[in-house]
Amino acid sequence: MRATDTLIHARWVVPVEPDNRILDYHSIAIDDGRISAVLPSAEARQSFQPRVNLELDDHCLIPGLINAHTHAAMTLLRGVADDLHLMDWLQNHIWPAEQKWTSEQFVHDGSQLAIAEMLRSGTTCFNDMYFFPEATAKIAASGTIRACVGLILVDFPTTYADSPDAYFTRGLALHDNYRNHPLVKCAFAPHAPYTVSDEPLRRVRMLADELDLPVHMHVHETASEISDSVMQTGQRPLQRLADLGLLSSALTAVHMTHLNDAEIRQLADSGASVVHCPESNLKLASGFCPVQTLIDAGINVALGTDGAASNNDLDMLGEMRTAALLGKAVAADASALPADVALRMATLNGARALGIADETGSLTVGKWADICAVDLGRIETQPLYDPVSQLVYAAGREQVSDVWVAGQHVLKSRELTHLDIKDLLQRARGWQTRISAGDSK
Amino acid sequence: MRATDTLIHARWVVPVEPDNRILDYHSIAIDDGRISAVLPSAEARQSFQPRVNLELDDHCLIPGLINAHTHAAMTLLRGVADDLHLMDWLQNHIWPAEQKWTSEQFVHDGSQLAIAEMLRSGTTCFNDMYFFPEATAKIAASGTIRACVGLILVDFPTTYADSPDAYFTRGLALHDNYRNHPLVKCAFAPHAPYTVSDEPLRRVRMLADELDLPVHMHVHETASEISDSVMQTGQRPLQRLADLGLLSSALTAVHMTHLNDAEIRQLADSGASVVHCPESNLKLASGFCPVQTLIDAGINVALGTDGAASNNDLDMLGEMRTAALLGKAVAADASALPADVALRMATLNGARALGIADETGSLTVGKWADICAVDLGRIETQPLYDPVSQLVYAAGREQVSDVWVAGQHVLKSRELTHLDIKDLLQRARGWQTRISAGDSK
Repeated sequence: MRATDTLIHARWVVPVEPDNRILDYHSIAIDDGRISAVLPSAEARQSFQPRVNLELDDHCLIPGLINAHTHAAMTLLRGVADDLHLMDWLQNHIWPAEQKWTSEQFVHDGSQLAIAEMLRSGTTCFNDMYFFPEATAKIAASGTIRACVGLILVDFPTTYADSPDAYFTRGLALHDNYRNHPLVKCAFAPHAPYTVSDEPLRRVRMLADELDLPVHMHVHETASEISDSVMQTGQRPLQRLADLGLLSSALTAVHMTHLNDAEIRQLADSGASVVHCPESNLKLASGFCPVQTLIDAGINVALGTDGAASNNDLDMLGEMRTAALLGKAVAADASALPADVALRMATLNGARALGIADETGSLTVGKWADICAVDLGRIETQPLYDPVSQLVYAAGREQVSDVWVAGQHVLKSRELTHLDIKDLLQRARGWQTRISAGDSK
Repeated sequence: MRATDTLIHARWVVPVEPDNRILDYHSIAIDDGRISAVLPSAEARQSFQPRVNLELDDHCLIPGLINAHTHAAMTLLRGVADDLHLMDWLQNHIWPAEQKWTSEQFVHDGSQLAIAEMLRSGTTCFNDMYFFPEATAKIAASGTIRACVGLILVDFPTTYADSPDAYFTRGLALHDNYRNHPLVKCAFAPHAPYTVSDEPLRRVRMLADELDLPVHMHVHETASEISDSVMQTGQRPLQRLADLGLLSSALTAVHMTHLNDAEIRQLADSGASVVHCPESNLKLASGFCPVQTLIDAGINVALGTDGAASNNDLDMLGEMRTAALLGKAVAADASALPADVALRMATLNGARALGIADETGSLTVGKWADICAVDLGRIETQPLYDPVSQLVYAAGREQVSDVWVAGQHVLKSRELTHLDIKDLLQRARGWQTRISAGDSK
């Protein structure tokens, strides 16, 4: 009998890698935070002597979900301005609110609220882009969740930094602080082609090459972003990024709702990843990302919720469902974007986009034990003919029972083990009172 | 002090009718199953002596949701065949499975499972179309949920009836059994233009006029339904229905994903209702219903989940959300289909489509007490700037805490008071075993 830290026995294990197999009655062993074995439960019971043993009779184990694009702290602006056009929403509501309220404390409280919501819905890793990323990194590093923290960059001054130079200085210091951290890594995060000019973008490219970091950026979110760019620079944004040397496998291009055939080929050739945010794109009427076409072209497509201010939740199970449903309608093909592809987008493809596919994104021996258990025994997911279909098309976030991040049991029978919900709620309500009083809405 | 059966105090009441107001700290009194008062809580505490008093401090009370199109018993086929084209799905999977398995017992067990799922997600009324409607009616009538039960009609023989005459005979007997029933009413339910020929449709029109019943029918679900009809009859299906006299305020036309401008005007003039089923339309890649355009034309648009085999859930909160999100993208206008319109579609507009708007669909004195309480105090819906935004864009079905149907407290702190979940699950699993063994999939 081999000693092991944790042994989880599940009705199903869906490892995602190497292929779409569904393992019946399998177990996962965890040692030193990493997956040490995936094997039939009958065999596991005979081979392992676990310190912690967990029986999940009606559950499916999947890789922890990877939210490949969000602005965690914006949970504090959830629902503050809905049913508005993107530029009205940004220019007249979100940006003024951010200018007024964003601070280290705002980002701390908002990120913590977001992390609680994400863990409760099975997300074990998120790719963030927001001001005061130091606050977000600190909370993630305290052991609750894996994060790729964006080194935010815009041309204009904010409460966070007053010039491109200042953004770079703060960002590089942050990256230096978390070098080789087991949970936190950094990415450059120039906000969008229309908010960052050529000079700082050239510097991003140079530094990203030097430090081997991903570049996380909104690209081609709306048709008007493209037509404005053509008017101002004579170029579509993607071509401008290509000319600046940013179109490479380091690029994680978010949204991409408007693409012509040549751009799709160019993207595929570059090895860049696309992050699809279907609910945000729908809510802001930004357009439809041609996901199945991108996948067919060989592009790595990951999945993100975007921030809670334009979604309005951080629920990756729901996002998978929306992606799978919408992908069929957009492709005009009901066999497009099947359930297992949606699950892969929300796990392994996310890890690939963030450059951490060797560390997480599938239930593979040697990777970190980033695991999500979903209870499929409820009436909402019965009867059950295919667990992956139930996960994507019928399961709700409330069916996520347990979550592990690097082997830490961070959600235990629906209870967060590292966060104080009561305190979180109190702080969220404090912000609500202040923001409501100060907002003209 | 006035005696009352039940008094519910809530943080918010959203009555839907007469307008979009949000009532802070209001209470609802229930007597003899009907709403007897809606008033400020401070006043309610001074005026009423309730037998049952309920304090819902973080909750929003809304009218019970009305699922205006489903096939309840098909929960037993949830996920049996996904990611397939509509006609492949119907002809090679669903119809053969139905031919093999559909029986009085199947419909009993499937409807009961569906009703449990619907009540747990805040639905108090559903508009059904399926075989053996007697079984569905019986379960609804036993006091758990309001139903409009479809008198199903197709040209071809099934295990339920072997000829149009037989469908009519069974249907009319069912209608006669439930005449003036407080919870159950009937509608004619000719399946679709492509499955019912002219002669039985003429008879439907005559009987619907005579008995003053709605006509519930799939219409213009896909582009090929229309092109096939043009090829076979020279007419688009809607024109054929108009010529048969069926295009009237009695018609509840489901799906309507392909409509030209003339048809939209014709629909508006007729007073017919449209039932939008966004998740089913997406999943089967049927097309996009132009909801905001229909609303602008003055058409009553209700909301339905369709059956669990093409959704794959019966969650009207989720369906509202999908409708509100998709409606913006389809209209290319982020201000289209705002949250309060989605809520109205899922409540009052449903009641109008079923001809029961005098009885339910809003929190109005004199109507049945069909009420849903949603706990908005969870981290997933905090902070909160607007309860209707949170309901539509952020709340999950698990936040439905309490439900009343005609004043009966059918869901009490998430527990169903009239249904045995354990028994339901056991029967669902029995069907799963039989269907899995018999299905070639």
